[in-house]
Amino acid sequence: MISITTINDVIKQLTKPAGELETSVDSLLFGEPNTEVKGIVISFIATQYVIERAKELGANLIITHENPFYSHQGAISHIQNDPVYQAKRRLIEQEGMAIFRFHDHIHKYRPDGIMAGLIAQLGWDAFIEENAAAFSIVHIPSATVPELASLIKKKLEIPFVRVAGDISATCSRIGLLAGYRGGGQTAIPLFEGKGVDLIIAGEGPEWETPEYVRDSAYQGNHKAMIFLGHAPSEEPGMQLLAEQVRTTFANTPVHYIKSGNLFQIM
Amino acid sequence: MISITTINDVIKQLTKPAGELETSVDSLLFGEPNTEVKGIVISFIATQYVIERAKELGANLIITHENPFYSHQGAISHIQNDPVYQAKRRLIEQEGMAIFRFHDHIHKYRPDGIMAGLIAQLGWDAFIEENAAAFSIVHIPSATVPELASLIKKKLEIPFVRVAGDISATCSRIGLLAGYRGGGQTAIPLFEGKGVDLIIAGEGPEWETPEYVRDSAYQGNHKAMIFLGHAPSEEPGMQLLAEQVRTTFANTPVHYIKSGNLFQIM
Repeated sequence: MISITTINDVIKQLTKPAGELETSVDSLLFGEPNTEVKGIVISFIATQYVIERAKELGANLIITHENPFYSHQGAISHIQNDPVYQAKRRLIEQEGMAIFRFHDHIHKYRPDGIMAGLIAQLGWDAFIEENAAAFSIVHIPSATVPELASLIKKKLEIPFVRVAGDISATCSRIGLLAGYRGGGQTAIPLFEGKGVDLIIAGEGPEWETPEYVRDSAYQGNHKAMIFLGHAPSEEPGMQLLAEQVRTTFANTPVHYIKSGNLFQIM
Repeated sequence: MISITTINDVIKQLTKPAGELETSVDSLLFGEPNTEVKGIVISFIATQYVIERAKELGANLIITHENPFYSHQGAISHIQNDPVYQAKRRLIEQEGMAIFRFHDHIHKYRPDGIMAGLIAQLGWDAFIEENAAAFSIVHIPSATVPELASLIKKKLEIPFVRVAGDISATCSRIGLLAGYRGGGQTAIPLFEGKGVDLIIAGEGPEWETPEYVRDSAYQGNHKAMIFLGHAPSEEPGMQLLAEQVRTTFANTPVHYIKSGNLFQIM
């Protein structure tokens, strides 16, 4: 008897560690649960490039952290007539490519699967002090902001980071927030509440944490923050997931595809 | 008889062109409406630096576009015990500095007062094709993305912009969106609906418009986008406002203070 792996098998395996979520954006956006999985592509976001590569690789299931149509909640009313959206959707449907959005569940892993990937990629596993639901605190050997920026760029293979605050600060306690969690409600209290010197986050509104850090530095505090970019902060988590899926479904080809740099600085 | 200008006089004058708004974040955050205005400072955001400068300049009213406490809606529960917040608040109260948040009304000017400042600063007044509530369309002489990035940095006096999409695109129709309006719901439809080659916005979620533009470029469309940063996109509007207020209240010292670069690239 030959056992096959279905899309549903993969989804069950992926979502299990998070338990039942009351609400979630995670769902099988394209494809049927009972289809046999020929190959899996895992990516931060199912871009046009990622979908075309998945096709070339013979995969029929893409696991994507972000929605492929540029909306967290999957809104499409504003792009219904857009030819870029239409062409991408047509490609997915013509190729019979299944797409599973896998966002909320991996963030509910304990520790957060996306954060675990980021910390591992930065080489900071040994320095974890706390893994909370929305952030982690690491206590690293002291380093300056430029030193940390260099290390981050090298480890995450990214061309730049955005820095605010006192760049002469020497940092050892760091608050890490993946994705869009760099907003003030989550990030600012880590300075006073957790005694961090530095926030490293994916992205967040510019008038919140960065402006707080600017004021703090102006008041004479040696505090700073680094925005990595959303994708750079979450790609390592999806890469780590790919390794886990590769182990679990050893008979299925599993490919991690980096979506690549979104921005360049001019 | 000597006529005096009160804070209320200034607020009335500022809000008048927008008419009555049903809901608004605009309000006198500190100070009393009947206080005589000794001097006015206008800024994108009342940072610690701006408040200290206002004090040195003898001003007792600051007009700020963004909330001074890092929250659009003015939430403070998460920073109540934060020493940076407390020190800033203490300075404001000890100096008797009045602070008027002036956000929604200026965006409701027709054309939007913030957008008018941005377009003027870029030297594109002659190229306006449409001034809508949330965006403007300009039709400029063709230029490449790097050429436009250079022009923007020079005109807005900023050190960098973030660019996504096809940087070899030659652009003439541009969708401009100030502040946080670079999100997908507002910006993406301008490509198909208005035929723009390029979006220039303050900021917005990275997984929305930038990812759309990345896909569009990958599909072979010569489309791009530029994120200016929130402050750089709105500061010119507040600077223009300062000129208008200086004319209206000719007997009151009016100072525009640039809050300066928030980020540096590393």
